Amino acid sequence: MNNFPHDHIVKSYDEEQRRIAAEILHMGEIAVAQLEAALDVVERRDDRAAERIIANDEAIDTLEDKVSHDVMQLALRGPMARDLRVILAALRIPNDIERIGDYASNVAKRSMALNMLPPVPHATGLRSLGQLAAELVRDAMAAYRDQDAQLALEVRDRDAELDAMYTSLFRELLTYMMEDARNITPCTHLLFMAKNLERIGDHATNIAENVWFLVQGDHPLPPRDKRDETSTTNIPSGGLSQS
Amino acid sequence: MNNFPHDHIVKSYDEEQRRIAAEILHMGEIAVAQLEAALDVVERRDDRAAERIIANDEAIDTLEDKVSHDVMQLALRGPMARDLRVILAALRIPNDIERIGDYASNVAKRSMALNMLPPVPHATGLRSLGQLAAELVRDAMAAYRDQDAQLALEVRDRDAELDAMYTSLFRELLTYMMEDARNITPCTHLLFMAKNLERIGDHATNIAENVWFLVQGDHPLPPRDKRDETSTTNIPSGGLSQS
Repeated sequence: MNNFPHDHIVKSYDEEQRRIAAEILHMGEIAVAQLEAALDVVERRDDRAAERIIANDEAIDTLEDKVSHDVMQLALRGPMARDLRVILAALRIPNDIERIGDYASNVAKRSMALNMLPPVPHATGLRSLGQLAAELVRDAMAAYRDQDAQLALEVRDRDAELDAMYTSLFRELLTYMMEDARNITPCTHLLFMAKNLERIGDHATNIAENVWFLVQGDHPLPPRDKRDETSTTNIPSGGLSQS
Repeated sequence: MNNFPHDHIVKSYDEEQRRIAAEILHMGEIAVAQLEAALDVVERRDDRAAERIIANDEAIDTLEDKVSHDVMQLALRGPMARDLRVILAALRIPNDIERIGDYASNVAKRSMALNMLPPVPHATGLRSLGQLAAELVRDAMAAYRDQDAQLALEVRDRDAELDAMYTSLFRELLTYMMEDARNITPCTHLLFMAKNLERIGDHATNIAENVWFLVQGDHPLPPRDKRDETSTTNIPSGGLSQS
């Protein structure tokens, strides 16, 4: 453990490292809370609550700046080479959390656009998708907290589940749009909301991969399943009522 | 300039800093080339070329890992506090470039899905959007190369132009979908492709903001215009032929 006699209020290197990890965990908690609040407002059609979520997103952005500043200050103390992984993870994970917060905030924003339209009954699939996404983020953060490489692997594998769920919701929404042109605008919002949730899973996976790297070093990750397939999914419009 | 007598093959701190900056500029060039190639394949309906773009994306990912490793090695040499900004920018900018590469690759991927469908005449707006996005990335990288805070500000301001273009294309695509259900699948791909291009503009802006921070330090950025409005855009379906 280092001491810095030239500045007696400076925390020890290890203490500072722990403080930063706690700050990152706190960021993760805020992002999950934001995501769950965003899923709630979709169902409650509550513009006020949506606005609060959008405003809260700034708190995560500010925290990210603060954390990356603190991490770099720590790096500048000249840590040992073995701390390189700790520092890299502490720089990358907040960035993923920040993006998760962005996506949650965008879900809230789109819920406000949906609230201007008549209610659509197709939002149920969105909730299951969002719940799984929130679970992945929570587990990824737990893996970081406990330096649990096994849990990190599980998060990555379960992201394939989220991708499959997203692909099926995507197809479902597209068929609703084809059935009735009045569904196009609300379902387009739902498509982008679903995409946001799927991206949250990708960021949970990034966090998990950083935890793996943190714990296992350069030991390579086992191969993983493919991501969402909607980039290459087409729904035939022939045979549907409106075609 | 530092020298490290304990390791005579190690480059000087400044030399290494310049080498890393060149590597980042190279990453940026690849990302722009990928984006332009992706825009081309949309028009040429060329699956082979699209596959090449998707495969090339890995090169950017590998470069990003390498750069962040090199930057951290540099940081561990214990630079002066004034180098903190250089290091932070060198850590963040490759991350944005990597995301730009991802989006370009996704545009290529979706072009392959479009190629399985009859051609749609509505892809022209996509090209202008993509060209502006490529310009913003190119200018953001030039601002980084020349440490040009003024050019960085311009990039950020022109991102508002891209957002406006995106919003109008988004509305246009939605109306095509309402006019004819057979347009829904291809236009959904175009919607996501347009969204990818709009996000590329956001990452160009991130790069520009990092350049500003690099050059101006904590001097705050002038306020900017709002982003894309499609999260809150609804197209009334009443009054359209299919409603």
